Amino acid sequence: MVAPIQENLVSKNKAYASSFTEGHLALPPAKKYAVLTCMDARIDPAAAYGINLGDAHVIRNAGASAKDALRSLVISEQLLGTEEILLIKHTGCGMLTFKNEDAVGILRKNLGEEATGQLEAFKGDFQPFPDLDQGVKDDVEYLKGSKLIREKIKISGWVYEVETGKVRSVV
Amino acid sequence: MVAPIQENLVSKNKAYASSFTEGHLALPPAKKYAVLTCMDARIDPAAAYGINLGDAHVIRNAGASAKDALRSLVISEQLLGTEEILLIKHTGCGMLTFKNEDAVGILRKNLGEEATGQLEAFKGDFQPFPDLDQGVKDDVEYLKGSKLIREKIKISGWVYEVETGKVRSVV
Repeated sequence: MVAPIQENLVSKNKAYASSFTEGHLALPPAKKYAVLTCMDARIDPAAAYGINLGDAHVIRNAGASAKDALRSLVISEQLLGTEEILLIKHTGCGMLTFKNEDAVGILRKNLGEEATGQLEAFKGDFQPFPDLDQGVKDDVEYLKGSKLIREKIKISGWVYEVETGKVRSVV
Repeated sequence: MVAPIQENLVSKNKAYASSFTEGHLALPPAKKYAVLTCMDARIDPAAAYGINLGDAHVIRNAGASAKDALRSLVISEQLLGTEEILLIKHTGCGMLTFKNEDAVGILRKNLGEEATGQLEAFKGDFQPFPDLDQGVKDDVEYLKGSKLIREKIKISGWVYEVETGKVRSVV
């Protein structure tokens, strides 16, 4: 038996593929940029940020963490020719609502000591941030300071408002 | 002067926000699942995988790497209540085309020795994989083997074909 979530993927994809006409697109992003944003379910980057298919890399993780995205951004820039990064965090982000010790406490309770020992995989850092605009500035700073990202790469920071669908410039 | 990429974000977003009616959506994904897929510019997860706004977390990185996504997946499951993961890699992925030593060589040439010293940030591992279906299986296995992901979480592996727009089940 196929689970409903998987059924949804198969049936919706069948409809999508039946009218698909973009099989000719090249691997490197046509507009040479990368967008880094949050995994949050309320964000549709293609629609909300105006990204046409084939135009940009889209990297998403919990909180739009620049540190977490570094490997992907280096590949995007060094191997696939992108020259600009839009870093977009958002209002109502889950990462604004807890501290590392809270998350570790929940894991210890739910999964036991053995599991929390495996947090080393990401250095035990869930990367929460207490202030939205400061979080955007800090992550842009992190990327500008990294020797793995060339100085000529344009990096800007933004906030997306899940309540209104609007983006605003931060840095 | 605003760069064209940023101009595009601002103007397209303005149009999006002007007809936005989804400001009521809750933080936890309504359908309690997470999709992990590649950052590749040729993938539009919402459209191709049938994800409605608010329904699922969408995590994207170079190659749809499970290891890279672990922090986000733990947050998705433990703090935001998701119960199923769809892991979807794709044909024509850049991660199929090089080896770690190739990438390090390119970085050394472009950025110098000082920069390659910073690769420690992601343990010098770009996480390429030589075989697509095996890569899907390995990453599903990695998640099933992690003590940070509960056994009750459903995990399935898929391939998206950038040439046809179709998904197919792998594991």
